Amino acid sequence: MPAKRKEHTSHLGSPAIEDYLEQIHNLIIAKGYARVVDIAKNLGVSQASVTNMIQKLDAEGFVVYERYRGVILTEEGGKVGADIARRHEVLTRLLAGFGLDPKTVHEDVEGMEHHISRQTLDVLTLLMEELEGNAVLMRKLKRKLAGLS
Amino acid sequence: MPAKRKEHTSHLGSPAIEDYLEQIHNLIIAKGYARVVDIAKNLGVSQASVTNMIQKLDAEGFVVYERYRGVILTEEGGKVGADIARRHEVLTRLLAGFGLDPKTVHEDVEGMEHHISRQTLDVLTLLMEELEGNAVLMRKLKRKLAGLS
Ligand SMILES: [Mn+2]
Ligand SMILES: [Mn+2]
Repeated sequence: MPAKRKEHTSHLGSPAIEDYLEQIHNLIIAKGYARVVDIAKNLGVSQASVTNMIQKLDAEGFVVYERYRGVILTEEGGKVGADIARRHEVLTRLLAGFGLDPKTVHEDVEGMEHHISRQTLDVLTLLMEELEGNAVLMRKLKRKLAGLS
Repeated sequence: MPAKRKEHTSHLGSPAIEDYLEQIHNLIIAKGYARVVDIAKNLGVSQASVTNMIQKLDAEGFVVYERYRGVILTEEGGKVGADIARRHEVLTRLLAGFGLDPKTVHEDVEGMEHHISRQTLDVLTLLMEELEGNAVLMRKLKRKLAGLS
């Protein structure tokens, strides 16, 4: 039975709230500010779409938009953005550690990252840390993985 | 950047093609046949919705619907249904092995299962098998997990 959990995400081609907040978070971390043009570029959408979504995010209390200062995350927006960025990182490191091709990792991560509870994130983080710190286990699993393809 | 992969899934509240095929697959495995009433019950939707979707699945070549024989999966439909059911099983066993609460596991799995490539499924399967067969490692990870909460 499909879960009825409310999600800030669509997966129907157009990036949803969680993707915007993740991207704004990443830009602020990397550059200190998030410009519409950079958000548009990173999400592969038009600047008009970004402006529309930012108005929606502002109305919903996730960001504050000021014409000359750009987009600022509220505490709630910052929490969601950082959370998705963390899920993105953990999933990516876990899968990339096995040597999967980056495009596949990226596509899977972009989909999966919206469906991960705190508990599941804890499990995936533990697995990632264990594998990154346990070369013997990683070697064993990679050998098995190579045998599957 | 969100992935542009085409998906047979919506996550916007109403179960999508992949969920129907998974459910029909499961019913056929369990009971030998898939009735509209059972599909509706398992997906939490009306029988009218199921009938509509089955006509769509029939038109797209995933099922054949015969009034008195019920729903039969085509080879393509059977492949998709079995594939989603397998992703569901692997994710569920992997997460449930850590003792996460079943409702959370179910919600995460129902979301994640639509975003898992063959390569990622192989990795998750390996991890599941390793953890199910390695009590020492599992004990160590569960102890760490308990320390996180
Ligand atoms: Mn992401
Ligand atoms: Mn499922």
